[in-house]
Amino acid sequence: MAENNLEISGKQVIFLNGIYPPLPTPFDAKGRIAVDALERNLEFLNQFDLRGFVVMGTNGEHVLLSEREKYQVMEVARAVIPPDKLMIVGTGCQSTSETMVLTNGAASIGADAALVLTPSYYRKQMTPEVLVNHYRTIADHSPIPILVYNMPACTGIDLDADTIVMLARHPNIIGLKDSSGDVVKIGTIRHEVGPGFQLLAGSASFLLPALSIGAVGGILALANIAPAQCIAVHRLFLDGRLKEVQDLQVRLIYANTAVTSRWGVAGLKAAMDSLGMYGGPVRTPLLALSSENKKLLDSILIKSRIKK
Amino acid sequence: MAENNLEISGKQVIFLNGIYPPLPTPFDAKGRIAVDALERNLEFLNQFDLRGFVVMGTNGEHVLLSEREKYQVMEVARAVIPPDKLMIVGTGCQSTSETMVLTNGAASIGADAALVLTPSYYRKQMTPEVLVNHYRTIADHSPIPILVYNMPACTGIDLDADTIVMLARHPNIIGLKDSSGDVVKIGTIRHEVGPGFQLLAGSASFLLPALSIGAVGGILALANIAPAQCIAVHRLFLDGRLKEVQDLQVRLIYANTAVTSRWGVAGLKAAMDSLGMYGGPVRTPLLALSSENKKLLDSILIKSRIKK
Amino acid sequence: MAENNLEISGKQVIFLNGIYPPLPTPFDAKGRIAVDALERNLEFLNQFDLRGFVVMGTNGEHVLLSEREKYQVMEVARAVIPPDKLMIVGTGCQSTSETMVLTNGAASIGADAALVLTPSYYRKQMTPEVLVNHYRTIADHSPIPILVYNMPACTGIDLDADTIVMLARHPNIIGLKDSSGDVVKIGTIRHEVGPGFQLLAGSASFLLPALSIGAVGGILALANIAPAQCIAVHRLFLDGRLKEVQDLQVRLIYANTAVTSRWGVAGLKAAMDSLGMYGGPVRTPLLALSSENKKLLDSILIKSRIKK
Amino acid sequence: MAENNLEISGKQVIFLNGIYPPLPTPFDAKGRIAVDALERNLEFLNQFDLRGFVVMGTNGEHVLLSEREKYQVMEVARAVIPPDKLMIVGTGCQSTSETMVLTNGAASIGADAALVLTPSYYRKQMTPEVLVNHYRTIADHSPIPILVYNMPACTGIDLDADTIVMLARHPNIIGLKDSSGDVVKIGTIRHEVGPGFQLLAGSASFLLPALSIGAVGGILALANIAPAQCIAVHRLFLDGRLKEVQDLQVRLIYANTAVTSRWGVAGLKAAMDSLGMYGGPVRTPLLALSSENKKLLDSILIKSRIKK
Repeated sequence: MAENNLEISGKQVIFLNGIYPPLPTPFDAKGRIAVDALERNLEFLNQFDLRGFVVMGTNGEHVLLSEREKYQVMEVARAVIPPDKLMIVGTGCQSTSETMVLTNGAASIGADAALVLTPSYYRKQMTPEVLVNHYRTIADHSPIPILVYNMPACTGIDLDADTIVMLARHPNIIGLKDSSGDVVKIGTIRHEVGPGFQLLAGSASFLLPALSIGAVGGILALANIAPAQCIAVHRLFLDGRLKEVQDLQVRLIYANTAVTSRWGVAGLKAAMDSLGMYGGPVRTPLLALSSENKKLLDSILIKSRIKK
Repeated sequence: MAENNLEISGKQVIFLNGIYPPLPTPFDAKGRIAVDALERNLEFLNQFDLRGFVVMGTNGEHVLLSEREKYQVMEVARAVIPPDKLMIVGTGCQSTSETMVLTNGAASIGADAALVLTPSYYRKQMTPEVLVNHYRTIADHSPIPILVYNMPACTGIDLDADTIVMLARHPNIIGLKDSSGDVVKIGTIRHEVGPGFQLLAGSASFLLPALSIGAVGGILALANIAPAQCIAVHRLFLDGRLKEVQDLQVRLIYANTAVTSRWGVAGLKAAMDSLGMYGGPVRTPLLALSSENKKLLDSILIKSRIKK
Repeated sequence: MAENNLEISGKQVIFLNGIYPPLPTPFDAKGRIAVDALERNLEFLNQFDLRGFVVMGTNGEHVLLSEREKYQVMEVARAVIPPDKLMIVGTGCQSTSETMVLTNGAASIGADAALVLTPSYYRKQMTPEVLVNHYRTIADHSPIPILVYNMPACTGIDLDADTIVMLARHPNIIGLKDSSGDVVKIGTIRHEVGPGFQLLAGSASFLLPALSIGAVGGILALANIAPAQCIAVHRLFLDGRLKEVQDLQVRLIYANTAVTSRWGVAGLKAAMDSLGMYGGPVRTPLLALSSENKKLLDSILIKSRIKK
Repeated sequence: MAENNLEISGKQVIFLNGIYPPLPTPFDAKGRIAVDALERNLEFLNQFDLRGFVVMGTNGEHVLLSEREKYQVMEVARAVIPPDKLMIVGTGCQSTSETMVLTNGAASIGADAALVLTPSYYRKQMTPEVLVNHYRTIADHSPIPILVYNMPACTGIDLDADTIVMLARHPNIIGLKDSSGDVVKIGTIRHEVGPGFQLLAGSASFLLPALSIGAVGGILALANIAPAQCIAVHRLFLDGRLKEVQDLQVRLIYANTAVTSRWGVAGLKAAMDSLGMYGGPVRTPLLALSSENKKLLDSILIKSRIKK
């Protein structure tokens, strides 16, 4: 497990700075977890200077996996992810207690942190009071630190800055993955909380703007297929090379919009197949790209210089 | 199992006309399924001229139940629901195959029909093509008929009339529970499809307007606590007693808005407790009503003549 | 001016029951108000048992008219509308004082009531307090009664039931035109206020459901081209002929969705042209229907039995 | 008029880089334009290195002004704004032709550019085709360049990147003020169009993220009360002083959220009063801040170092 821990603002936290691919869960032709493929994809990505990996995020099709499969994915991944790289596991379920069980399971397998999606089905009841109680209960009982996962495009719930600031005060809640792209919210949180609460952009499309306003890295679907470029945005930003980083960032928006925003997991898996990694099938109700769209995807990968 | 089947528009369908309470799942103080309470609640409701019951709908906290608990609830309910009343089971999961397995399980336990919620997590990908494929796959393989469950307040997905009309053409998809309250949509569907596709209102708040435009009944949280009044709306409407039914309907809106729209499952369970049924605790992240809100709830139940 | 006034709930109010077409404003080829055409359209519609007319509503392209043109339209219309039929004038502007001036102008020309659209530009500031103050100020100073006009599809503001109930207590605010189609809101208001506050459906697509829950009529774009059918829905409902009214209503939804929901004012004007009335051009930014869409429109009018 | 024009990407465009306050329109106690106050506010702001001023934007209460008042404001402003600073005038109306007339009027008074808000009342009809036709017609006939004004919080219309890219190709459409805060859209446009199409942030809350991704400045309500700080964000960014600019930006978010996002024009005017400028009353339906909120505002101005 990663060791570069950090005490900031009175919290003993893991230093999260950097780029993370949220790994797709590969399935074989019979619909089972393709263990070999997961290992190979990870070995390929281990060549790059990534800070770590997320398993069972949105791109991991976590809501389409059985409980047994979730444990299988975690175990395979932890075995291949080097100890100095973080394994962050998506453990959010609709139920608080189910989330706690899975979080503890992830910890026992060696996860460095848990990424906990907002529960969302009873969204009218998901008041700040309810959500704060949910996250604090989980964080109180978790042996590993908690990252809040705000993903309004999938959950229909957009955590507001005040709620996040309340959560940030908990000693075991160390950060936020925000996929809303609301940079004003990121800046508001940055203004209110110390550096012990770390912000990660949830999409390569707004990595640079998020960094400019206080994020320390990103969990980026695009980092599965363009890890070097995603890492480069982070580096160029830290080096203050504004013109170069802007040019790179806007090109990545083009690729990311096409691949992951438009087509979701199926687009990401098709891109991996196109680039020689293993993407493989998605689970229904998700459908694979049509062959026409696969061709279009290929031309986008080439135009955005991800594929040679 | 119910026998009043019907062949309409070339479909062999169950005659769905009437009122259905979606049963809350009772938990005991330790958080387990309270089997006795479920039986007693059902026995109480069996006194009324309800058409049947829904188990594991939104008010059944279905997303907070384990797989094992789902089967337990179905088995207990089927044993107590008389054979001439329908048992409709909520079987919708995010994954198509998981939904199919649960639908088959429900059928084997004696469910008369399955109520299949739209999958929603990957909502941007939930195009008409994807949703039609999902529902048709399930309906093709299900031994019992399928009801589509449109619940935009929880899923963020609002099935449009065209998609529903496409689904209605499938011989094993026999109806829709619509909780959107969009009466224009109900009328549009009524115009496009024959009576073999049956429409059920998803809330007591718009039962009468939905009946006026072609619905044949409703699956109504309020029918758990005010079964006689809900049944009366249906009867008075069929008898053309327009003034009486309007007065009753608007009073039920008042009660329903307060109890179930504002407070959700926790409100419904608190109302059941207040009325001598078993409501009991909700599962976290849901929280119980404050004692202040319980008093407010009581006064609403009295003012709306549900509680004497 | 109309004389069938009514004292109900302590208010001296005009009896609004019935159907009203919101008149399109006809333009000639040079873009000026086509006075003759407006007169001819009104003379045609005067044959039907309509309760009155709305001028300068949404279909009157009111936001595209100059102040001078608004007075011209009111004067022409009043001269042709018989005294026993109501002329309701849309007078809502973004500014309270501008609305007051126009309301007084309408009164002086002989309008029976003013239909006041919610101001909307500063929507974040349009709190219940602000809106109540706006409407009460106008109603306090208006010589004619005020109807609240709720039109969220155009304004982005959806007045809630509580705000409307507060407005309904003002002695000079006598009703609501609601174009939201939210029948639960209509029922809630019906439950809270006496019959002195009259509810009008804002679209033919939900006329019957709105009547079922307490509306007394409707201001219906479709009443410009299908006045007899719209009046028939109202009559059949009052006569309790539930099956006939439902069949007619769902057919009208089909026509109304196609003509006015999809294509707006341009669709309505094209339909009038097709039926031998004067529709004529719309003002930019609105664009006329393509000739292809005009053909499609024609087939819809025939299929829905509006055109022979 | 400003002379630092620029030929880029084949367009002869004005060099827009920099910060612009959108001036509130001051009213006196009787509700008339307070000419002296407008002059004094402008003289105060002329001390700062602003690129220019916007008159009759959202903060200018443009929708609450009569046509005559609009001309009065433009004339007073042009007389006080130095020739080397730009005067950009908000000229967008619901009607295309009314917008054209006002744009030409603004040009004749010496405006350097027109800021044209999207028409929005008939929003369902505001397709890309309609909007492109609207803007092109205006740009074709305007003697001064056009800036597109995207303000979804007020109009309910959010121009998408594709539509903006189409507009950017017109030789007389030179830029965009975007108030949506959608930095991915800004980056997408930056990727697709050359530097001849200039992007301005519409709020101080996301100035830095917008600059990071390709904006060249901003039209910022906050620049009325904190011109030096807004200018400093731009300078520090250009100088690559990332840590300082981030700290300043997040502090400005705090102030801007409180003053202009929460309370709108009334908040801005109250802040101006508090700082010794002339804010004065807003027009109804807008309401002034309560005295309690004025005190809260004062404390926010002090905490954010805008007021000493």
